[in-house]
Amino acid sequence: MKEYIKDPKEIERKSFEIITKELGDKTFEESMGKIVKRVIHTTADFEYADLLEFHPKAIETGKKVLKEGCKIYADTQMIIGGVNKNKLSQFGISIVNFVHDEDVVKKALETGVTRSIIALEKAALDKGIRVYAIGNAPTALLTLERLIEEKKVKPDLIIGVPVGFVSAAESKESIKDTGIPYIISRGRKGGSTVAAAIINAFLYMI
Amino acid sequence: MKEYIKDPKEIERKSFEIITKELGDKTFEESMGKIVKRVIHTTADFEYADLLEFHPKAIETGKKVLKEGCKIYADTQMIIGGVNKNKLSQFGISIVNFVHDEDVVKKALETGVTRSIIALEKAALDKGIRVYAIGNAPTALLTLERLIEEKKVKPDLIIGVPVGFVSAAESKESIKDTGIPYIISRGRKGGSTVAAAIINAFLYMI
Repeated sequence: MKEYIKDPKEIERKSFEIITKELGDKTFEESMGKIVKRVIHTTADFEYADLLEFHPKAIETGKKVLKEGCKIYADTQMIIGGVNKNKLSQFGISIVNFVHDEDVVKKALETGVTRSIIALEKAALDKGIRVYAIGNAPTALLTLERLIEEKKVKPDLIIGVPVGFVSAAESKESIKDTGIPYIISRGRKGGSTVAAAIINAFLYMI
Repeated sequence: MKEYIKDPKEIERKSFEIITKELGDKTFEESMGKIVKRVIHTTADFEYADLLEFHPKAIETGKKVLKEGCKIYADTQMIIGGVNKNKLSQFGISIVNFVHDEDVVKKALETGVTRSIIALEKAALDKGIRVYAIGNAPTALLTLERLIEEKKVKPDLIIGVPVGFVSAAESKESIKDTGIPYIISRGRKGGSTVAAAIINAFLYMI
């Protein structure tokens, strides 16, 4: 039988030790480092050390609103599947996604746009949502930007890490102009696992 | 208002066109190409063109068992969240994960090993499970390997794409020796999104 580490705490400790070592001279402010390392832990992709970009108020704001037990909109079920449920309930945080809602699916088919757009428009009506975590659809992030510009929604924090080849990089650059605190991954890379890792990093810090 | 493509079909078509173009000389057998491109589509990471490795019978076997409406064990809820539900029900495929089951959580705490190990041992008792999709935990893949060696389980296909810094690369190399058809991602990279993308690529082909 093969020998390997089976203790989850030891696996995590060793993983972060390796990540810290391989990051070398690349150091971060403590909280930022925890987020960056958790994303690398999730993706095994050191490029994120350069791709992640933080609004100066993003970390402070994220800690504050999560500690207050806010509501999060996630643009995929995968993000919801990936966040630590014990921590969510400990802080009274709820996380919702509307992409598979019947009314959303119907309207998306009728209008010929992505379900992500319609779902985001539905989310914007819920003023209890203070954090938007977009890990998949650039169209969701672009819709969020439009609704912010139209003053129809004003979140406290945007985790903008959609992945893709069509509008992904642009959507992340332009969300920076809204004035809302953000964490983004520049360029094409990102994903639901990245969004979940960022949320989890916050949950482990607060 | 910004102009961008809102039609999901057009976004997907254009994404795959860009991926195919940037892959350049790197071409694949048709079905394999669909899987590789869907993984790149999900991660925006072209390294997967080199990291994915296919057992010669993996694609044929995967298509066959999925068409027959098999049961899949996924090592995370994220994988389940990421697969196309309409396609699953169309083919009568079920997908399960036991990591959050009460008995699994309890036994993992008692024994001090990862929940992924205990959950995999539980899955191995269900002989209806014909495909194992491991996107997160190297310990799940190592447990699967051990149970295959002990002739306690004999799946038709293994999607072995756990991510990480501790045992991930080794777990994927050693699953290749079991004789079971596999699709793996060599090295540290992988993830739940990668596993879901591989399953979805199959679902769109069959």
